[in-house]
Amino acid sequence: MRVVVPFAAETPKTRLESVFSPDERSRFARAMLADVLRAIAETGHKPTVVSTAPLAVADLELPEAVAAVTSVAVDERPLTDAVNAWLPGGDGAADESGATGDPDHDPVAVVMADLALATPDALEGLLTTAADVAIAPGRGGGTNALVVRHPAFRVDYHGTSYLDHCEIARSVGADLETVDSFRLGTDIDEPADLVEVLVHGRTSDRALARLREFGFALDDRDGRVGVARETDRASE
Amino acid sequence: MRVVVPFAAETPKTRLESVFSPDERSRFARAMLADVLRAIAETGHKPTVVSTAPLAVADLELPEAVAAVTSVAVDERPLTDAVNAWLPGGDGAADESGATGDPDHDPVAVVMADLALATPDALEGLLTTAADVAIAPGRGGGTNALVVRHPAFRVDYHGTSYLDHCEIARSVGADLETVDSFRLGTDIDEPADLVEVLVHGRTSDRALARLREFGFALDDRDGRVGVARETDRASE
Repeated sequence: MRVVVPFAAETPKTRLESVFSPDERSRFARAMLADVLRAIAETGHKPTVVSTAPLAVADLELPEAVAAVTSVAVDERPLTDAVNAWLPGGDGAADESGATGDPDHDPVAVVMADLALATPDALEGLLTTAADVAIAPGRGGGTNALVVRHPAFRVDYHGTSYLDHCEIARSVGADLETVDSFRLGTDIDEPADLVEVLVHGRTSDRALARLREFGFALDDRDGRVGVARETDRASE
Repeated sequence: MRVVVPFAAETPKTRLESVFSPDERSRFARAMLADVLRAIAETGHKPTVVSTAPLAVADLELPEAVAAVTSVAVDERPLTDAVNAWLPGGDGAADESGATGDPDHDPVAVVMADLALATPDALEGLLTTAADVAIAPGRGGGTNALVVRHPAFRVDYHGTSYLDHCEIARSVGADLETVDSFRLGTDIDEPADLVEVLVHGRTSDRALARLREFGFALDDRDGRVGVARETDRASE
């Protein structure tokens, strides 16, 4: 199954700008992307990064086996249009190898690049359903990851996309399964979300390593759990 | 398996005070409790509400089959102490029927009363693990639900309790499984969490019905999904 990973290469993670410099945001976003690609590769599938700007796979410092199965396609269109081109029955899109999105109506998965907690196990739970459409919702009614096996289904990421996708599935006669996963349901968008990376990140995760390198640590001094930054360490 | 549901009967859901009146907070908290008790009963287990103050089961308006298996024990102690009394090997606690917490070291589950999205399926995933300790973490490093089969394990709900519980399990030689569930990982604590009830609540859920009765609806007018309240309807 082709697994598409949309990536905003030029303006990543703007909602983290209160805690990261622009350079840090870019490095953190690429670290999360690298972790997501590795998790996908470990399920035995081949990820295609659909990036808003050229992106060198070599710069992601992926493990060799992950880099070998990862491809990049550049698509400057808005997220919804770029993803729809890759879906079964979509108008197609060519990656660097010349492969196009799905001439055979093979199922396609779409996994967001900021699912820093994604593990192969969590992804397997999504990728192995038999439903025409399977969705792992995120907080706030988002669609963090989905699998599409139905040729008439199209995405629309605006607004409460999870509910919209349920409705779109109904309207085209596709059956839908909702995948219940905390790991896939956790997208890292806002400063409060960094807690989840520090709590649940695996020691091999690039995103966790970046946060620690930037000086972030858990902070529960005021009775609720947040993150604090050791500015000394960050400025080293 | 005994399933303990701690409930703060007198000061429920204080972090929702910006959007609810005190009476509404109390009614909403009891609606979530009723939904959690029903989900537990539907797994075939018997819930015991461990309440900080007397609580009449009849006032929860539970379905008859749920009320028949639900008991209440009053314990004014802080959450950690009250829960530890019920764990295998704990010092015991008597409910209204005179039954005490676990003389036989039977496994005990602890499920928070604000897991409004809990379904029997999601709970089964937690209740059926074989681990000495199984935890469904919540956002912010919390422990939303757990199952304890090891007689030396004790809870400590302060701070980043999920990490503390992992450490406590290690220290007593208990193996630990983390249960990956968006539904169990979603505790309804803050106004932003109400979105999750409106998006994922089932039509039979009491908490969803209460929110609608209070006039709450999804609102994505500013591009991000939140809740809005129709004050006209609320004041009817």
